[in-house]
Amino acid sequence: MKNSMADIGLIGLGVMGENLALNIESRGFRVAVHNRDQETIDNFINSKAKEKNIAGFGDIAEFVNAIERPRKILMMVKAGIVVDNFINKITPHLDKGDIVIDGGNSNYQDTIRRTKELEDCGYYFIGAGVSGGEEGALKGPSIMPGGSSEAWPEIRDIFQTICAKVDGSPCCEWIGEGGSGHFVKMVHNGIEYGDMQLICESYQIMKDVLGMSADEMHSVFKDWNDGELNSYLIEITANILAFKDTDNTPLVDKILDVAGQKGTGKWTGIAALNLGSPLTLIGESVFSRYLSSIKQERVEAAKVFKGPKIKFDGNREEVLSDIHDALYGAKIVSYAQGYTLLAGAAKEYGWNLNYGGIALIWRGGCIIRSVFLNRIKEAYDDDPAIKNLLLSPYFKESIESCQGGWRRVSSLALSYGIPVPAITSSLCYFDGYRCADLPANLLQAQRDYFGAHTYERNDKPRGEFFHNDWLT
Amino acid sequence: MKNSMADIGLIGLGVMGENLALNIESRGFRVAVHNRDQETIDNFINSKAKEKNIAGFGDIAEFVNAIERPRKILMMVKAGIVVDNFINKITPHLDKGDIVIDGGNSNYQDTIRRTKELEDCGYYFIGAGVSGGEEGALKGPSIMPGGSSEAWPEIRDIFQTICAKVDGSPCCEWIGEGGSGHFVKMVHNGIEYGDMQLICESYQIMKDVLGMSADEMHSVFKDWNDGELNSYLIEITANILAFKDTDNTPLVDKILDVAGQKGTGKWTGIAALNLGSPLTLIGESVFSRYLSSIKQERVEAAKVFKGPKIKFDGNREEVLSDIHDALYGAKIVSYAQGYTLLAGAAKEYGWNLNYGGIALIWRGGCIIRSVFLNRIKEAYDDDPAIKNLLLSPYFKESIESCQGGWRRVSSLALSYGIPVPAITSSLCYFDGYRCADLPANLLQAQRDYFGAHTYERNDKPRGEFFHNDWLT
Repeated sequence: MKNSMADIGLIGLGVMGENLALNIESRGFRVAVHNRDQETIDNFINSKAKEKNIAGFGDIAEFVNAIERPRKILMMVKAGIVVDNFINKITPHLDKGDIVIDGGNSNYQDTIRRTKELEDCGYYFIGAGVSGGEEGALKGPSIMPGGSSEAWPEIRDIFQTICAKVDGSPCCEWIGEGGSGHFVKMVHNGIEYGDMQLICESYQIMKDVLGMSADEMHSVFKDWNDGELNSYLIEITANILAFKDTDNTPLVDKILDVAGQKGTGKWTGIAALNLGSPLTLIGESVFSRYLSSIKQERVEAAKVFKGPKIKFDGNREEVLSDIHDALYGAKIVSYAQGYTLLAGAAKEYGWNLNYGGIALIWRGGCIIRSVFLNRIKEAYDDDPAIKNLLLSPYFKESIESCQGGWRRVSSLALSYGIPVPAITSSLCYFDGYRCADLPANLLQAQRDYFGAHTYERNDKPRGEFFHNDWLT
Repeated sequence: MKNSMADIGLIGLGVMGENLALNIESRGFRVAVHNRDQETIDNFINSKAKEKNIAGFGDIAEFVNAIERPRKILMMVKAGIVVDNFINKITPHLDKGDIVIDGGNSNYQDTIRRTKELEDCGYYFIGAGVSGGEEGALKGPSIMPGGSSEAWPEIRDIFQTICAKVDGSPCCEWIGEGGSGHFVKMVHNGIEYGDMQLICESYQIMKDVLGMSADEMHSVFKDWNDGELNSYLIEITANILAFKDTDNTPLVDKILDVAGQKGTGKWTGIAALNLGSPLTLIGESVFSRYLSSIKQERVEAAKVFKGPKIKFDGNREEVLSDIHDALYGAKIVSYAQGYTLLAGAAKEYGWNLNYGGIALIWRGGCIIRSVFLNRIKEAYDDDPAIKNLLLSPYFKESIESCQGGWRRVSSLALSYGIPVPAITSSLCYFDGYRCADLPANLLQAQRDYFGAHTYERNDKPRGEFFHNDWLT
């Protein structure tokens, strides 16, 4: 690469950064790379990047100057202050119109701020959510870019070339303004939390109510993966349940039930609370991970409390079919809630989001990829202004046909003492959403009673507020 | 008051500020008051404060100088920037050792910051949560002061004199350092959200499953108020259900089911997410208010979706008894979750919280006052280091005896299509808390499968992390 300029610069040679650099180069682009320390650069250049169109630069000015203008500089560094530090290091060397891209898991509010700051200086900024882990970065991730719209045509070719493809279409489309790319990535992660929690609850019912072995459950998830639940997470669940430890027993039984997390599920819940959007299933999924973390306390509590002791003597196949329907109904609610949150953010921040396009992006490369997402795309094709995914003809019919099993298995789990917060919380959302008269009339009466907060009446126009002296 | 100094100064003559000034004066203290505009001061001094030991000052320097040193200045102004503005206006006139008190609904993180800022300048700062609304402010509120511990002896006399009393003890005790006073007030409000939501769910089951009239429900809540559910919110619910509109029909039936809120419930949920504390019942309660707000969309959705159509033909008294038990069991979980959140914050911020004392404070003056809080006080008296309120002998026995009805009524509501997110979410927490082996082992396997996040094993010591190549 000695005598030619790079098509793109990349900062941050962690696994994700290295793999993205290799991915980009493999598609015929020339890449300049920089890292905080020279040793990491040298190691990469002399091993994985050897004899490739990748050049390393320890000096930030030389790095920037090696990139063709308008420059595209992709940062793959730790979210937070590190991103700001690198922005401050490169901006003195940039020219007007250069494009800085943050491909890390940044908080969308930081991305909103940075987009404005860089645009104010005459540069462009893109916050791009990148999903798919190490393997996706190397072979084709799902990419969700948002920020300075003017910069999209400049980076489109590279991004749509390196990303995953499904049915020939790229899993990377322009998301929208400001922090929308990172917001959509955050909601993706939240939905991932929800999908995983639902699978775990299904698994626990099979294991603790139906008394099924890992091998038996493997078969169920394998079957489910051939139907409407077909998805990466169902597929790997089947594989996990079949996986044997060195002693030939199921490895899953040896794994400690303490869930880790990196915080994006939490961010999704906080965003929903701040935006006034009911995101119950993901909220419960985050709280479930928290509850899992106090393992020792749970073990002690299990000795203290007597729960129901019932032995299952029903029809296993019927219950499995009910679990399937509960999982599917709850999943529909989870995506409906996630999309409602996206719409709330779009309204709050003035983003023009392409909802169907987002479903297409998520079909490949990322953790929540599934055939289900095609149905969401179709729902938005049919009616781009649809208020709630539940209302689309396909999902309306699906959720109605699921509800019998969903209700039965919820009751079953609660009566057996199995925690099913995501399955029941989503059912309650469905019942609340389709409820013309919620009991919030009583709640408003209480608020007016103790705090003179006033109420509206259902026999008067909205916007007229009433107050009573309730003690008369 | 012409020739004597004031015992305390008060800024902000809204209803809360006026009533607190009158309350303080009525106990024999001299009060100096200030407000942004002179007209408000004059109106107050010439009407409600007439011929009382209350003096008004439009000039901030004169106001500060009219207060005995060390000065105590209580701000009752809108939370947010207004508090900072007043702090900036008064500090140039303060002397070292003076005490600034914020009695508004400030966010605890602002209070942490302000305490530090004022202490750095040689002043003291107290963030005091004040609960009880207008009437409480005048007759005796519940007060939760935290911040500069050194200042507590100086303000203790006034605060413990003006607050509510229960069984002779004041509903005001020192909470702890930094933002702990406002944090505890925030959790109080979150618990209030939960208590109200539980009552609403109970009400909807009675109304929509059992087909009860407002008068019939009035009798039930009135009865419940004589038992272990005795509380202000149950009492006013009974009163509300009996209240007739001008046409002699129940007013509650005319009130629009769109719940308002002022944001402290939301803050509680966000704090729980940030602190890693499973606060599911309050979270669901906040989300339920959000769902209530889209009235028109719900009305439309009710026409679209077919739910279960079952007519109740069971035993009404049995179901009412089950609802009672569900409400009680869920309430125990809600307070256990709230106290767990308090403990999480205390750990995070280094506060020494007096948990039993907090229960005592909440017994009077505030919205969640109840006999139930005596049981919490006793639980902490028995074991100040108790890990979870559920584990105290009293609550353990109560929740175990509630669980049968709680499970039955959850199943009933879900099968009838009645949304009961708080009742079921808390039951799932109870079942999760007492579950030695949650399905998070599968979740950890998934995370390791797709992201190499590693896992621990239940046959190895904690802190050893393993990773598989799952595809082999």
